Amino acid sequence: MSNKIPVGILAATGSVGQRFVMHLVDHPWFEITALTGSDRTVGRPYGEGVNWLLDGDPPEQVANMIVQPTEPNLEPKVLFSALPTADARELEPKFAAAGYAVLTNASPFRMDPYVPLLIPEVNPDHTGIIPYQQEAYGWPGYIVANANCSTTSIVLPLKILHEAYGVETAVVVTMQAISGAGYPGVPSLDIMDNIIPYIGGEDGKLETEPRKLCGKYADGKFELADFKVSAQANRVPVIDGHLGSVSVKLRQQASPEEVIALFQNWQPTELCQQLPTMPKPVLIYRPEPDRPQPRKDRDAGNGLAWTVGKVRECPVNTVRFLAIAHNTLRGAASGSVLNAELMHLQGFF
Amino acid sequence: MSNKIPVGILAATGSVGQRFVMHLVDHPWFEITALTGSDRTVGRPYGEGVNWLLDGDPPEQVANMIVQPTEPNLEPKVLFSALPTADARELEPKFAAAGYAVLTNASPFRMDPYVPLLIPEVNPDHTGIIPYQQEAYGWPGYIVANANCSTTSIVLPLKILHEAYGVETAVVVTMQAISGAGYPGVPSLDIMDNIIPYIGGEDGKLETEPRKLCGKYADGKFELADFKVSAQANRVPVIDGHLGSVSVKLRQQASPEEVIALFQNWQPTELCQQLPTMPKPVLIYRPEPDRPQPRKDRDAGNGLAWTVGKVRECPVNTVRFLAIAHNTLRGAASGSVLNAELMHLQGFF
Amino acid sequence: MSNKIPVGILAATGSVGQRFVMHLVDHPWFEITALTGSDRTVGRPYGEGVNWLLDGDPPEQVANMIVQPTEPNLEPKVLFSALPTADARELEPKFAAAGYAVLTNASPFRMDPYVPLLIPEVNPDHTGIIPYQQEAYGWPGYIVANANCSTTSIVLPLKILHEAYGVETAVVVTMQAISGAGYPGVPSLDIMDNIIPYIGGEDGKLETEPRKLCGKYADGKFELADFKVSAQANRVPVIDGHLGSVSVKLRQQASPEEVIALFQNWQPTELCQQLPTMPKPVLIYRPEPDRPQPRKDRDAGNGLAWTVGKVRECPVNTVRFLAIAHNTLRGAASGSVLNAELMHLQGFF
Amino acid sequence: MSNKIPVGILAATGSVGQRFVMHLVDHPWFEITALTGSDRTVGRPYGEGVNWLLDGDPPEQVANMIVQPTEPNLEPKVLFSALPTADARELEPKFAAAGYAVLTNASPFRMDPYVPLLIPEVNPDHTGIIPYQQEAYGWPGYIVANANCSTTSIVLPLKILHEAYGVETAVVVTMQAISGAGYPGVPSLDIMDNIIPYIGGEDGKLETEPRKLCGKYADGKFELADFKVSAQANRVPVIDGHLGSVSVKLRQQASPEEVIALFQNWQPTELCQQLPTMPKPVLIYRPEPDRPQPRKDRDAGNGLAWTVGKVRECPVNTVRFLAIAHNTLRGAASGSVLNAELMHLQGFF
Repeated sequence: MSNKIPVGILAATGSVGQRFVMHLVDHPWFEITALTGSDRTVGRPYGEGVNWLLDGDPPEQVANMIVQPTEPNLEPKVLFSALPTADARELEPKFAAAGYAVLTNASPFRMDPYVPLLIPEVNPDHTGIIPYQQEAYGWPGYIVANANCSTTSIVLPLKILHEAYGVETAVVVTMQAISGAGYPGVPSLDIMDNIIPYIGGEDGKLETEPRKLCGKYADGKFELADFKVSAQANRVPVIDGHLGSVSVKLRQQASPEEVIALFQNWQPTELCQQLPTMPKPVLIYRPEPDRPQPRKDRDAGNGLAWTVGKVRECPVNTVRFLAIAHNTLRGAASGSVLNAELMHLQGFF
Repeated sequence: MSNKIPVGILAATGSVGQRFVMHLVDHPWFEITALTGSDRTVGRPYGEGVNWLLDGDPPEQVANMIVQPTEPNLEPKVLFSALPTADARELEPKFAAAGYAVLTNASPFRMDPYVPLLIPEVNPDHTGIIPYQQEAYGWPGYIVANANCSTTSIVLPLKILHEAYGVETAVVVTMQAISGAGYPGVPSLDIMDNIIPYIGGEDGKLETEPRKLCGKYADGKFELADFKVSAQANRVPVIDGHLGSVSVKLRQQASPEEVIALFQNWQPTELCQQLPTMPKPVLIYRPEPDRPQPRKDRDAGNGLAWTVGKVRECPVNTVRFLAIAHNTLRGAASGSVLNAELMHLQGFF
Repeated sequence: MSNKIPVGILAATGSVGQRFVMHLVDHPWFEITALTGSDRTVGRPYGEGVNWLLDGDPPEQVANMIVQPTEPNLEPKVLFSALPTADARELEPKFAAAGYAVLTNASPFRMDPYVPLLIPEVNPDHTGIIPYQQEAYGWPGYIVANANCSTTSIVLPLKILHEAYGVETAVVVTMQAISGAGYPGVPSLDIMDNIIPYIGGEDGKLETEPRKLCGKYADGKFELADFKVSAQANRVPVIDGHLGSVSVKLRQQASPEEVIALFQNWQPTELCQQLPTMPKPVLIYRPEPDRPQPRKDRDAGNGLAWTVGKVRECPVNTVRFLAIAHNTLRGAASGSVLNAELMHLQGFF
Repeated sequence: MSNKIPVGILAATGSVGQRFVMHLVDHPWFEITALTGSDRTVGRPYGEGVNWLLDGDPPEQVANMIVQPTEPNLEPKVLFSALPTADARELEPKFAAAGYAVLTNASPFRMDPYVPLLIPEVNPDHTGIIPYQQEAYGWPGYIVANANCSTTSIVLPLKILHEAYGVETAVVVTMQAISGAGYPGVPSLDIMDNIIPYIGGEDGKLETEPRKLCGKYADGKFELADFKVSAQANRVPVIDGHLGSVSVKLRQQASPEEVIALFQNWQPTELCQQLPTMPKPVLIYRPEPDRPQPRKDRDAGNGLAWTVGKVRECPVNTVRFLAIAHNTLRGAASGSVLNAELMHLQGFF
């Protein structure tokens, strides 16, 4: 008998759900014991019902697991949600109301005043809101959200700067991979030999989520960080890896050399360093003038590390830099798995 | 007998030189009467010596013209220079000293205090410096430069804003096409499924050239515009068309609606409107949220127009927008041809 | 009043329909007087209802034309059909039965024993079947089909060889552009940095359509050409232009030099040479070892010419060559327009 | 002290040399004890002299190893050669003459009547020629070549068919990745949105190398297989993985089902199965109609397996199929490492 914590995946047959399966199938602490899917797949073995988009085949461990409907009568109490936005808005509260811990990749509750928007390296204390969420909404369970993939790509270095010097403003331009749009996602006729300077809703997420992630939590309340972000998200012909170009105005002066040293010496909290899938180092500084690059840096730390580079003085603001993270790994399913690892160490499960 | 003005092309066999050939071969005012090339090609018919990179074949009108050495004994007095940087630095002054009008695509003299950095729609009065240049350097001829292709892509809207409201700062991120690197240029192994956040020297050009272009000219002196630019140039897997994302802080308040109206109503000077290859309109505003796009907008106005879009309020600065221009057409050879057209109307030739 | 022949376009709002609009809008012989579209667009001005996928905007001449339902009560008697396969199968016979001449880009009736599968340069005499079609099906109107875009790319050189030497077998491998799949078509996640060696139904079309196109017509009957084709169609990351690699076994011996001379000297029939949009030459032979290439050769003859190259002896069969044609121009809408031009000269309208 | 066999790498600083480093650095049987490089790098630590093109950084184990000149006074007796063609032609015989075993990725000696052109799964007995090579050329050492990467991609299934039914002819069209051209290799301006139907010398290699690989060896002589190959090699915008489309005429009849069963049941020799880096299985048959695909199948078996699919009856010949192998792994450095593993088991070192 396994001593692992049983977990389930909501919408396990979609592209994000498949990523959850891959990250959880050999996890040292968690064991998949339930998978849900659309009507088309319910009642069939996962390996048959799924249209597998990742390399290779669906893993053996789940291939014969019968897909269940997405209803709050699942056996495991910890659930990873890969539900599409509209479904997440409707169903995740029902699961929380039925006593489940819902770790979601979906966006509807990210800015909810009682839902932690969590990245272990950025704001591990934000899980403190959870009892307040349960009380406010009368739920025995709760919802914890991970951040949007574009927010994720730039928020760790931003938070480190904010903590050290105070960020006043940030002008962000992202160059985002096609995999961020899911499957079938971006038509090849739109993106080949082209850039699409528009991703629906993304600028707004980039302008608000970092303020919550870098904000303070105390006594059942989040205080948004007091900086402003201007974001322009662009879709580029790159398969994986979101690259962000950031110019920040700091409240205290800081030279590029100081910022580089800050990034090089930064470590997540001791608790974070115990998470089994946390890469070491989790923040990589590259000194070359032409890095980071999506294809060369997205897979650093098994796709879970951030890479920063081009830390330079900014003629307009204080300092500027580039950052990259793997959007479908760090920026999606794996982010929620790391959240679950943190919460397990924090005693939630 | 043709009444056209005879012109020559320096380094006519290279990739920029070939563009000059194409733009001049059927020009209503100019006629190619001399072509120079490298040692390998000197003495051979142009059509044989050239490694033609553009579509189709070298035009008949020049195919049998014998390539000459790049020495200041050419017959035409107006020369378009496609010389590489080092050669331009050495040779262009010699041609000016020998009485030639040199309209160059090269960078060495762009920021020279006596050389006009010219875009007809932006600063047609800057040619006023030419007599001062001749006097300062003791040249019977002179040098006139066009702008870097990345500068070109964003400078027209920037100048219009500067004139109307005063620009205080601009944060610019460009996504630049591979053709900007010439041939063979960017290795496919570097850029496929990737972005290279570095183009040697480009950030510096983007941070200085716009200040000269938007600056005032009077009495033999340029005054650089008093704004600051922060630039991050990126190479992206796009064939042609440089896209720039710009956030500007203005000295006077301006709403996006006012800026859009400004762009929609803007016209170049009356003299500019008489240039035979000037497109109408030369500045296109697109209202769609996902435009401008390189592949869809680069060829607007035969590749000579600017397209702007996404004019929005900026949470950090005053206003932001995107702009695109075709880098090898508007941003290179054709730019110099338009300069020559302007100068002809101004009475220089 | 215009003396032009009034024509209509069925399914004018889709991607092929838009191509028809572009090719017909300034046509010297035809004038668009009716456009049909889906329920969503019926009753609205074409310029508003259409989701315009081509460059620029819908042409003024049709922007205010009201979209009609696809029902056989249209005013013009000559119709170009851009209907999707299933709709074409159902509706085109109804239009023929109602007296319309239907020139279709759809596949259902291409191999029908009474429908001409027509390319003017290949088999202009096949329109002779039309009266027999009318008699067999009891239609006052009729259907004429153009060929599949992949068939089109290789069939003209194949037909020339067949006529001169007799083709016995052909092994064909195509590398086909993404635009051949329509819009949204191929997901970028599937094709970037990849090849998909499968296009549904395409191998079968490539193995049968050339036999009808190169076959003989007499006395109300087509005789399929007595050669065999083996086809492997591949989708490649190219925007436009289908490239075919062909190895043929001929019934008579022929050297590469003879075949090159044959291609270089070939001319379509005199009647064909009078078609207003027929490019001159319509078959281009390129001697370079690395041509034809999709990006460099697809636009030859305004996208209506074929380019062949790499004519070489085949160690296994008799001779081999590569051929290219623009799939959305020559291989789709424009092909039907050329068919209409031919049929007008043949006295059909 | 290590009991591993000391090995050296010739031209270790180039792109193929770097691959050799990666494949040998943690090898269970071999240990890198010498690296040679160009004049520019000689005398410097490998980690400093190399322009590292692969992901991450040069491995620690070799970073401080001093680069030596490519001269036959190296300490290890087994050498992997990544020399460019001209250097290989001149230098490899000198190393063989000085007693070294040279396992080369270069082409000059592949078709030499005394040099084994070796792929362990295809012709492990061909090493029998080595003593004859030594006698014929008077060398105490010897040269063993691996096959061209495009040959490699299709030769294993071809050999299996040849052994089972006898191949009479094969018509091969390849779609080859840009990494096959080395670095800087293919300019992005040439290949983006394009195909180049020409790779210098590749068609010839594809038409001859398979005949030697599938041929018989006995008594100091190779007998080329008595089949003919027609090859058309194309460069496509894919990063890694050469895809080959093959139509074969067999001497005995065979149905697709029989061929599929043959591929599914095939195993390399028992000796081959003991090679430490040999993947299991080494030949993968995929039943999906749209496989193999470069991006999805190139990494199968750590990039060392072949994937075949689309085994179908051929309307012209007997049977057709598609095959893929990773060109810079299976088709280059790793191929030679596998050759060395085989030869070690055969008692050569």
